[in-house]
Amino acid sequence: MATYIATLQCTDAPGIVRAASSAIFDVGGNILENDQFTDPVTNQFCMRSRFESEVGIEEVRSRLHDDLVQFSPALHLRNEEVHRRSLVMVSQYEHCLAELLYRRDQGDLPLDVVAVVSNHTECADLARRYDVPFHEIAIDATSKADAEEELLSLIRQYDVDFVILARYMQILSPDLCKELMGRVVNIHHSFLPGFTGARPYHQAYERGVKLIGATAHFVTPELDEGPIIEQDVVRVTHARGPNDLVALGRDIERNVLFRAVHLMAEDRVALVGDRTVVFSQ
Amino acid sequence: MATYIATLQCTDAPGIVRAASSAIFDVGGNILENDQFTDPVTNQFCMRSRFESEVGIEEVRSRLHDDLVQFSPALHLRNEEVHRRSLVMVSQYEHCLAELLYRRDQGDLPLDVVAVVSNHTECADLARRYDVPFHEIAIDATSKADAEEELLSLIRQYDVDFVILARYMQILSPDLCKELMGRVVNIHHSFLPGFTGARPYHQAYERGVKLIGATAHFVTPELDEGPIIEQDVVRVTHARGPNDLVALGRDIERNVLFRAVHLMAEDRVALVGDRTVVFSQ
Amino acid sequence: MATYIATLQCTDAPGIVRAASSAIFDVGGNILENDQFTDPVTNQFCMRSRFESEVGIEEVRSRLHDDLVQFSPALHLRNEEVHRRSLVMVSQYEHCLAELLYRRDQGDLPLDVVAVVSNHTECADLARRYDVPFHEIAIDATSKADAEEELLSLIRQYDVDFVILARYMQILSPDLCKELMGRVVNIHHSFLPGFTGARPYHQAYERGVKLIGATAHFVTPELDEGPIIEQDVVRVTHARGPNDLVALGRDIERNVLFRAVHLMAEDRVALVGDRTVVFSQ
Amino acid sequence: MATYIATLQCTDAPGIVRAASSAIFDVGGNILENDQFTDPVTNQFCMRSRFESEVGIEEVRSRLHDDLVQFSPALHLRNEEVHRRSLVMVSQYEHCLAELLYRRDQGDLPLDVVAVVSNHTECADLARRYDVPFHEIAIDATSKADAEEELLSLIRQYDVDFVILARYMQILSPDLCKELMGRVVNIHHSFLPGFTGARPYHQAYERGVKLIGATAHFVTPELDEGPIIEQDVVRVTHARGPNDLVALGRDIERNVLFRAVHLMAEDRVALVGDRTVVFSQ
Repeated sequence: MATYIATLQCTDAPGIVRAASSAIFDVGGNILENDQFTDPVTNQFCMRSRFESEVGIEEVRSRLHDDLVQFSPALHLRNEEVHRRSLVMVSQYEHCLAELLYRRDQGDLPLDVVAVVSNHTECADLARRYDVPFHEIAIDATSKADAEEELLSLIRQYDVDFVILARYMQILSPDLCKELMGRVVNIHHSFLPGFTGARPYHQAYERGVKLIGATAHFVTPELDEGPIIEQDVVRVTHARGPNDLVALGRDIERNVLFRAVHLMAEDRVALVGDRTVVFSQ
Repeated sequence: MATYIATLQCTDAPGIVRAASSAIFDVGGNILENDQFTDPVTNQFCMRSRFESEVGIEEVRSRLHDDLVQFSPALHLRNEEVHRRSLVMVSQYEHCLAELLYRRDQGDLPLDVVAVVSNHTECADLARRYDVPFHEIAIDATSKADAEEELLSLIRQYDVDFVILARYMQILSPDLCKELMGRVVNIHHSFLPGFTGARPYHQAYERGVKLIGATAHFVTPELDEGPIIEQDVVRVTHARGPNDLVALGRDIERNVLFRAVHLMAEDRVALVGDRTVVFSQ
Repeated sequence: MATYIATLQCTDAPGIVRAASSAIFDVGGNILENDQFTDPVTNQFCMRSRFESEVGIEEVRSRLHDDLVQFSPALHLRNEEVHRRSLVMVSQYEHCLAELLYRRDQGDLPLDVVAVVSNHTECADLARRYDVPFHEIAIDATSKADAEEELLSLIRQYDVDFVILARYMQILSPDLCKELMGRVVNIHHSFLPGFTGARPYHQAYERGVKLIGATAHFVTPELDEGPIIEQDVVRVTHARGPNDLVALGRDIERNVLFRAVHLMAEDRVALVGDRTVVFSQ
Repeated sequence: MATYIATLQCTDAPGIVRAASSAIFDVGGNILENDQFTDPVTNQFCMRSRFESEVGIEEVRSRLHDDLVQFSPALHLRNEEVHRRSLVMVSQYEHCLAELLYRRDQGDLPLDVVAVVSNHTECADLARRYDVPFHEIAIDATSKADAEEELLSLIRQYDVDFVILARYMQILSPDLCKELMGRVVNIHHSFLPGFTGARPYHQAYERGVKLIGATAHFVTPELDEGPIIEQDVVRVTHARGPNDLVALGRDIERNVLFRAVHLMAEDRVALVGDRTVVFSQ
């Protein structure tokens, strides 16, 4: 008995749910979870189904394809035990990477972390301790194009499903953003759309906010403007200085990024226009 | 074009989703929301579907019934615009009733409040101001059986779907609890299962908890033990005395009860064994 | 025995706490609460002390003044039972005003609401029901200066301590903002600094945020830029449309404004530069 | 210039704050934080003051002692840079220990972890990686008294200020609890007072709660009944099984324990009767 996760996305039309549930029924499927949503702005229908079946994956895929082909969906199917493959990018701060690797080891995060890439070397030890290959790709004013070529090459080589920017302090070029659209998750250390750009905790202190936050979002060519996957905040008082906010913020950052990546790892995030549909439990 | 809400509950089996989605397809239905869950303890399958259709309610009901009859479901269908009918019971405190009536007037609560019943008269003015019939049913040591008979008579007379105990300070008899099983919602002024019984805020103060809460639950013969629908908490410090906790608690009580009642009003709560399935948005 | 609330603010210097506690000791004071903070940006020292004493208010004031005069503080003293006097401004939406008046009646808000002023008439009934004088001051393109003169006249006539903009949809002129600096609280229906300006819930929907919020802040000539007193957020999902956000937002607005006003009513908010110091319990 | 943290506790009386602030003034102290509270149940006055001074610690201590001696306070003074010394006890689960050690290394936790003690060996590697001495003290039915003697010996040898039970699965004897009263912090994996005893997440699942929590408390001879230091909760749905709750719970446990230990490390927790006074920022 295998457990499958199927996701599909297409223009909304009558009969999609019937077709999908018929296909699952025909392979003897026992539905464990089923979520669906039609986005009113884009009229995109999104569905995620998790089901058990004794039938092999190729036959299940074929049946889903045949029953749904009239709707031309983006259809994805995988065995739950075959994890998504992620590549993590970092600079000098390690707390987000540490959280992801620790959680993976604890069994909390069903995700493969196939490589760590950095423009610095501070996180090399951490990656080594968790037996994850570490690649340094230095970046300076003249080397950005080469660096991104090297990154793309690694993404292909490792057969990466998505890239996680875990406090990676470089901006990806617009071309790379477009090429990887929907496949790069970033953690921004503020409650977007407030405090875009650099030093958000210092901005937050100066503004005197009573809650600080972090935002995990897809990367797009417009800096800090990509579709939001997950956000959270924590209460602060006047007694907290900028450095306190930075320290408190590390907690929110690692928790929010973990939750966003966990959702991605379980295929719970769909991208519709500029927004996300998140099928959380 | 009408919008329907269908809920069904039955023993889990393959094909239920296919059958339901076929029936909805056959009446030209456009699914707006669809939620389902199989409880692993009881093996009960629960489903809630909200869909638009141009077909009349009797034909929709008949189609759902025919396609699903093999599963012997508890099936409920209504036009979204035909609101559920509730009867609210109170004693001396009015804040929960005030919240429900205010929200209904604001358009936040799609629910009919058909009558207010009380063993006191303090809330009569509030009910009158919102044009809701007020019935006093006094209770003393000897009159409880008569009082409950009178209540049941009102429930029948007003064709009540469910009863809301909005800080009603009397305990319903076990027989009445059984007769109304799954149809009576109570707000308990603590975070259950902590602090059952009387004066929970004073208990909370003595225990020195750092969060106080409230719990909305179905009423069963076992006091404060019924299936939980909604809970929430608020942070408190050592500086808050018992009376502060009572005042803070009023807020949580009215918010938690409102949210539970709102879920009930939209048919989002299913009862499976000793627990609830809540299809929140 | 009277209970006093004293607040003071001055440039930080050694010996202030000793001087203040000596003065309180000399009037036989029993300190119930004491909070202090020195803001590192402005070097302003803020203190709030709540204490019991059998000595009359004039003698207490005189003793505090004498012991603290060397620090040239802004010093304020009142008997706790003499409530602060507020004037509430509204337009068409009544939920924030309703919350404040309901809370005052419940005994949750130790504040006098001496008048309601509106550029519309929708809230007149609500004010009347709570026996609060209602003043309509219509505003159009040519009447703004006259309207503000009339408002100032009411503020003087009612001896108002602070003004509450409870979803008042007009912008105060820069001159009025300056004249009333630190005495006008506004509720903005977003989590500032995100979504300034109009229709913030629609902005929030388009941006796809996963939490929406509200912000209570002092009014300054720069729209939506004043020092923040209180903020809060609530989680939302992709399934919530703009109208849902508006409805959910009403809840946060009334709660956040209530909490900010409650803090003001208890003299717990100090203004230091562009930020607030909030001595919460 | 040194930064000092002074805490004092005594029966409430007029003049304590004046005396303490005079002593601090006399050593040229600049108060950075000052908190106080009188518990109405026990009439205990608690104070915490953090201040800078150029005077040496012995002279500061002497001055505080002389000015306050009439109140017979429990007085504690330390240089902020001389950290509290803690000993952590664990069994098989490592997530709480991992959090504490990681945070200490990140600079988030100003605390010395001088030793790890366990009745198992699973956490030995983790302690070694962070260069903390690891002591195995096996416990079986006959060895408990000897084991506790060995533990006490380690506490003396390492000059331990307080002991942290970081998911330590043995119950301390009543005698040991009394001997270490106020010096042992435990993390209980439920929102106390709900779900005392074993397998709280399974209890929580069966009860169908909508929020699960964790509680950090002082250890007393009555199991799970000690004074609460910190608590928190996280929302769960019907879709989460007992194992999900265990996984979600690990997060709350480590966060709540970290926050409680952080408060202890900064001398922010006072014990008054059966409750705590927590001077948080």
